[in-house]
Amino acid sequence: MSRSINLAVIPGDGIGQEVVAEGLKVLSAVLPQDVKLETQEYDFGARRYHATGETLTDADLDALKQHDAILLGAIGDPGVPSGVLERGFLLKLRFAFDHHVNLRPSKLLPGVATPLAGQPEIDFVVVREGTEGPYTGNGGTIRKGTAHEVATEVSVNTAFGVERVVRDAFARAQARPRKKLTLVHKNNVLTFAGHLWTNIFNKVAEEYPDVTTDYIHVDAATIYLVTDPGRFDVIVTDNLFGDIITDLAAAVSGGIGVAASGNINPSREFPSMFEPVHGSAPDIAGQGKADPTATVLSVALLLRHLGHEAEAARIEDAVSADLAERGDLPARSTSDIGDALAARVAG
Amino acid sequence: MSRSINLAVIPGDGIGQEVVAEGLKVLSAVLPQDVKLETQEYDFGARRYHATGETLTDADLDALKQHDAILLGAIGDPGVPSGVLERGFLLKLRFAFDHHVNLRPSKLLPGVATPLAGQPEIDFVVVREGTEGPYTGNGGTIRKGTAHEVATEVSVNTAFGVERVVRDAFARAQARPRKKLTLVHKNNVLTFAGHLWTNIFNKVAEEYPDVTTDYIHVDAATIYLVTDPGRFDVIVTDNLFGDIITDLAAAVSGGIGVAASGNINPSREFPSMFEPVHGSAPDIAGQGKADPTATVLSVALLLRHLGHEAEAARIEDAVSADLAERGDLPARSTSDIGDALAARVAG
Ligand SMILES: CC(C)[C@H](C(=O)O)[C@@H](O)C(=O)O
Ligand SMILES: CC(C)[C@H](C(=O)O)[C@@H](O)C(=O)O
Repeated sequence: MSRSINLAVIPGDGIGQEVVAEGLKVLSAVLPQDVKLETQEYDFGARRYHATGETLTDADLDALKQHDAILLGAIGDPGVPSGVLERGFLLKLRFAFDHHVNLRPSKLLPGVATPLAGQPEIDFVVVREGTEGPYTGNGGTIRKGTAHEVATEVSVNTAFGVERVVRDAFARAQARPRKKLTLVHKNNVLTFAGHLWTNIFNKVAEEYPDVTTDYIHVDAATIYLVTDPGRFDVIVTDNLFGDIITDLAAAVSGGIGVAASGNINPSREFPSMFEPVHGSAPDIAGQGKADPTATVLSVALLLRHLGHEAEAARIEDAVSADLAERGDLPARSTSDIGDALAARVAG
Repeated sequence: MSRSINLAVIPGDGIGQEVVAEGLKVLSAVLPQDVKLETQEYDFGARRYHATGETLTDADLDALKQHDAILLGAIGDPGVPSGVLERGFLLKLRFAFDHHVNLRPSKLLPGVATPLAGQPEIDFVVVREGTEGPYTGNGGTIRKGTAHEVATEVSVNTAFGVERVVRDAFARAQARPRKKLTLVHKNNVLTFAGHLWTNIFNKVAEEYPDVTTDYIHVDAATIYLVTDPGRFDVIVTDNLFGDIITDLAAAVSGGIGVAASGNINPSREFPSMFEPVHGSAPDIAGQGKADPTATVLSVALLLRHLGHEAEAARIEDAVSADLAERGDLPARSTSDIGDALAARVAG
């Protein structure tokens, strides 16, 4: 547990600016007096891309490396071609800083609306691999724009990359009361990658006899996420499957307004990055309508990663209490919600 | 509209046997006297694989080619390693017969239970590409079983393959009252394949000015499928994304007990294949517990493909009427449901 936190702050685009301000408000409020918080803001995202054509330079990476962690709002703007900021900034950062554990908890808190009937119990964590799979950018295009164009995408999976994230997931499952880990893949079709994942999963499982394991195809997993989400405790999965099922998981457990994530480098060789699962939502940006809760919960993950477990739990409790009362309150602005959460964690 | 139907029947494994029997029962009942139905049963699946090691030979393909269409139950058995029957039979057939339009309608019928709150209106069709993408089996493994294993999966996408399925989807959208087509992909990350899909989609859209189009990332699509499924009319998407979202679509629109599919070769160069979306469900096989409705609805798709629109509609109406009354009935066996549907379509 560090007595100082040197934080890189990347508000980014759209509502990113608004929600990050509230995240920092709650962070300042929760930290004990003797923990020194330093923040440095970076102007990455669409604005900088439009102004300079740059997304993330080597010098930027060097600067970010000096921090203990990164808090990110959201990156993306309709004026930038699809893929430019995603590949040029967000994925570049995840890969450069080897964020191989993409952690996405889903918990349906009391009082929170879900599209599912019968208010099921939902409390699981997805450990999404963050540096391999179809996200590597391998592949290419020939005869572009012609009737004979061929475009490929190569999913790259290594024993090294799979084993470390599978181990991380087993350790997380073992630390939870239900001790259950589900591998989600599509090993009946993607047999090369699927067998690698399945074999490593089964091998590591032998070291965790107290963890119950199972395997589900990704297509079937989407069914269970809506018909029986309570069956999941910890899920480990590949980068793309993780992307897909965590959006669905967010949807059923309160919506992307409350879905937090951590892009974690467990070795701490590079700073980890914490961000809400939602995007920059340009349609509601600048209006104080965005819910900062996902960012505030991402701050909790950040604190836990840096060893401030008590403060992380205080934030999560504050969010639970706030959400439980929301039904009775008139709609609040982004900063009203931030103020309320800051007051609770300070109190 | 043919005056005879020469059908290949592949009951397959597990509940496949039971549901196909009911599908044939309803098919016989619905056909007019003057349409001659010939069926030939093929013993593909786990039993044959265990007995002979064969999944689908060239001679099998030659035999199947002689038929007008194929009705498939389900293939798969826990005793066969994952991937063997999927790649060696089901996908081999889809690829050999160039089933590039994998058609999967989702309609929430009155009286049918859904895991979603508020019984939303759901009536859309997914046109899933069936012969490309990550399903091609391209890829491989090096240093298998070692700490340095690398496994790749190559998604192959061609202008030829994408354009024909996109055109099929536009034509289907144009023929529906709402005339709306949504492209689902992940073009912000899978930029090579994503741009190919997006460019072709936009190009073909110019020929269909009366069709409203939009684009949604696959991760976001899973959110809309549970929060606002009514926004979808026709969806066109890649093989793997289609696999994933159609299981979710089935789950929200009545479950895989009623989800039908067609693996269609629109040129009719080879026979098309119709099958329920569900698997062989070995846990309930042989007990008369399986719901044959998905197979019966697949028979309707088969009839429509062969030009028997009136009979297809009669089956769909019978299923709607049967489902609407289910809530009031005690649980029925597989064959009871088949009998009830056969009586309705004959009546
Ligand atoms: C914006 C996009 C590149 C990103 C992803 O696909 O990982 C997002 O969907 C997410 O889940 O964080
Ligand atoms: C069994 C499997 C190969 C198949 C697929 O992935 O296409 C199934 O999930 C389906 O959707 O028909």
